[in-house]
Amino acid sequence: MGEISTQRIADDIEAIARFSESSPDVGYSRPTFSRPWADARDYVRTQAEQWGCHVRIDAAGNVHIRPASRDWQEPLWLSGSHLDSVPTGGKYDGVVGVVVPLEVLRVYPEAPLELVLFAEEEGTTFQLGMVGSHLWVGSLDPVCLPQLANREGQSYVTAGAAHGVEPARLPAERLRPEHYLGMIEVHVQQGLSLWDSQVPVGVVTTVHGRRQFQVAVQGRCSHAGATKMTERRDALAGTAAMLIALESLGRKWNQELDHTVVTVGRLQAQPNAHNVIAGRVDFCLDFRGPSDTRLDEGEAIIRQRIRAIAADRQLAADIHRSEALPVVPFSSETCDRLRSAAAGLGVPLPDVVSGALHDAAIVAPHLPTAMLFVASRDGISHDPHEFSRIEDIQLAARILAGAVMA
Amino acid sequence: MGEISTQRIADDIEAIARFSESSPDVGYSRPTFSRPWADARDYVRTQAEQWGCHVRIDAAGNVHIRPASRDWQEPLWLSGSHLDSVPTGGKYDGVVGVVVPLEVLRVYPEAPLELVLFAEEEGTTFQLGMVGSHLWVGSLDPVCLPQLANREGQSYVTAGAAHGVEPARLPAERLRPEHYLGMIEVHVQQGLSLWDSQVPVGVVTTVHGRRQFQVAVQGRCSHAGATKMTERRDALAGTAAMLIALESLGRKWNQELDHTVVTVGRLQAQPNAHNVIAGRVDFCLDFRGPSDTRLDEGEAIIRQRIRAIAADRQLAADIHRSEALPVVPFSSETCDRLRSAAAGLGVPLPDVVSGALHDAAIVAPHLPTAMLFVASRDGISHDPHEFSRIEDIQLAARILAGAVMA
Repeated sequence: MGEISTQRIADDIEAIARFSESSPDVGYSRPTFSRPWADARDYVRTQAEQWGCHVRIDAAGNVHIRPASRDWQEPLWLSGSHLDSVPTGGKYDGVVGVVVPLEVLRVYPEAPLELVLFAEEEGTTFQLGMVGSHLWVGSLDPVCLPQLANREGQSYVTAGAAHGVEPARLPAERLRPEHYLGMIEVHVQQGLSLWDSQVPVGVVTTVHGRRQFQVAVQGRCSHAGATKMTERRDALAGTAAMLIALESLGRKWNQELDHTVVTVGRLQAQPNAHNVIAGRVDFCLDFRGPSDTRLDEGEAIIRQRIRAIAADRQLAADIHRSEALPVVPFSSETCDRLRSAAAGLGVPLPDVVSGALHDAAIVAPHLPTAMLFVASRDGISHDPHEFSRIEDIQLAARILAGAVMA
Repeated sequence: MGEISTQRIADDIEAIARFSESSPDVGYSRPTFSRPWADARDYVRTQAEQWGCHVRIDAAGNVHIRPASRDWQEPLWLSGSHLDSVPTGGKYDGVVGVVVPLEVLRVYPEAPLELVLFAEEEGTTFQLGMVGSHLWVGSLDPVCLPQLANREGQSYVTAGAAHGVEPARLPAERLRPEHYLGMIEVHVQQGLSLWDSQVPVGVVTTVHGRRQFQVAVQGRCSHAGATKMTERRDALAGTAAMLIALESLGRKWNQELDHTVVTVGRLQAQPNAHNVIAGRVDFCLDFRGPSDTRLDEGEAIIRQRIRAIAADRQLAADIHRSEALPVVPFSSETCDRLRSAAAGLGVPLPDVVSGALHDAAIVAPHLPTAMLFVASRDGISHDPHEFSRIEDIQLAARILAGAVMA
């Protein structure tokens, strides 16, 4: 039996990066169900088949890969992540969680391990995250699918049809917990704590809750040259005041309770013309933290603050909560299993928490679940400069192998 | 000889509105060289021909219309405006300045008057304002034209070819001042002063200067959930701080010197995804006022403030001045001519200034020029709720007729 190979892991990461839209300068884009995404998925499938695995695609568009000697009913460990990316993202997000169990399956061809590739984790293709895992565990109603549209206006069902999506088969192909021992997802940290403390890998004990809001700010269009500053109902200036207030709340809460964060990353002004005072702005607000109570309290304050700024500026603000995911504690037994595996290798495995959401958080209510985080240089994520050391990824693979082979 | 007809003017305005893209609910869009724009232009041309005028289109895409009895060399008064609109604009902006001289030509078929329809006044189709008048008077170098692109990626030359644009003919077809007595543009005020003081029409003595800047704010993309508030280099939050600072400067300057205004109406975040901290924002800054000295001083303060906010947040800000138009004083003789015409009708004609730019400001250095403003309800402009009373527009037509027939 061989060893976990940094060379093979590095080759896998580079191969998947090469399938992406756009260039290394501007980042790697693999929208769900796009050609680059499908090519990357085919690469992983072909690799797994060459190394003696069999493959099936479920009705949500997720790929499942098991050693050929293991049938689909046998209870195995599940490990995997996603190949879709944010626009112009990095090479490691999602990909590391795919290539690590792939390499474990190469080195341990009989491992009690199923590799899974979940579809549409990021939510930047269809505006909803973790669609593949949600559909598989049954926590997303398939009636929503025709409403989820990509930039080309195709629905999840239409765009996914060529890649296995088939709503009629979903109920029959849902997760059967008796076919699994638990789930371990490997992922890059997308935060600073491991990198800064020079620790290669950590065990994730909790995934933070997330709430997302669509906010529409309505003002009045008027002429940029002819309208006095006091006569304006400028939706973009009002939105700027809201963004500053939200950032300030986020800073305060983040000091009081680590990992509480408030972000506006997406914004659209109308008519978005240089000589017209904006009549309307739509923005998306993302609010996360480790305490559901604090998220409840924070949401009330955010709503009140946005409404107050709007009222003060004679604007109307409509606030729609588009998502509310609770804090997810991971399985202490599965965490212990990872700690034992790390101890067996003589390496530290500190506890960390996840501010980002992952497919593992969706699976956690159904299977004993945990995650391994690999250190990210400077915490950079969703950016072409994202980087993790290949030796750290190798260590995660050795810990995963130890945990599932124990 | 008939009378200036409110019915014909109203019919013209409604006919042009009907050619627009989109519906009355969301506004009227006639991008330069689009089908709706061309249909509106054809309507005016056909009307003028039915009422005994001849028509020529110059190499910049502007339409010139004279009574059939007047040849193109004879010195006449020039009056006109534009038919292109901002996205989802109102029914009056530009249109009033076309239908008023059209109606004067109907009632006075021998009037010493040329109607002009300038192309791309708004600058929202090709990102540069008053292209048609600039090209005609020679203040824009035609080498720029291939760089001006519309949303479909077509250049001014390509998109305009079917509508008369022909760069090779530009030098020969430039404005010949000896063919004109002066210019009088009629336009809706797009501001409050006339409406609030219940005066239907005013004479514009000055057009304010305008400077426009393209600002690029560079931060660092990172994960919205996993990046602490203190670890962020958020280009959108930084831009929000700049917008608030710019609005605050604008409010202060507007108090000190009427009509000094600062606007950001156009903004684009990248990657503009809900779960990614923005790595870059581009915005367009519009700064206007009645004093070139104050614009100079203000520009220095704006640059310094943007740079300070960027530095404070570890962002980079690149500020590019894309336009600098000085304050334009209009011809006192032409203003007096309008005042006399109003006095002859027994109506007041107060002096007003224009915060908005107009084709008349581009023509002013070459011909004795002035403008008439018609009251705008509540000063609303660049919005479907823009409105001017048909009786006020009729009065502007009577004053224009009086001035050119005097």
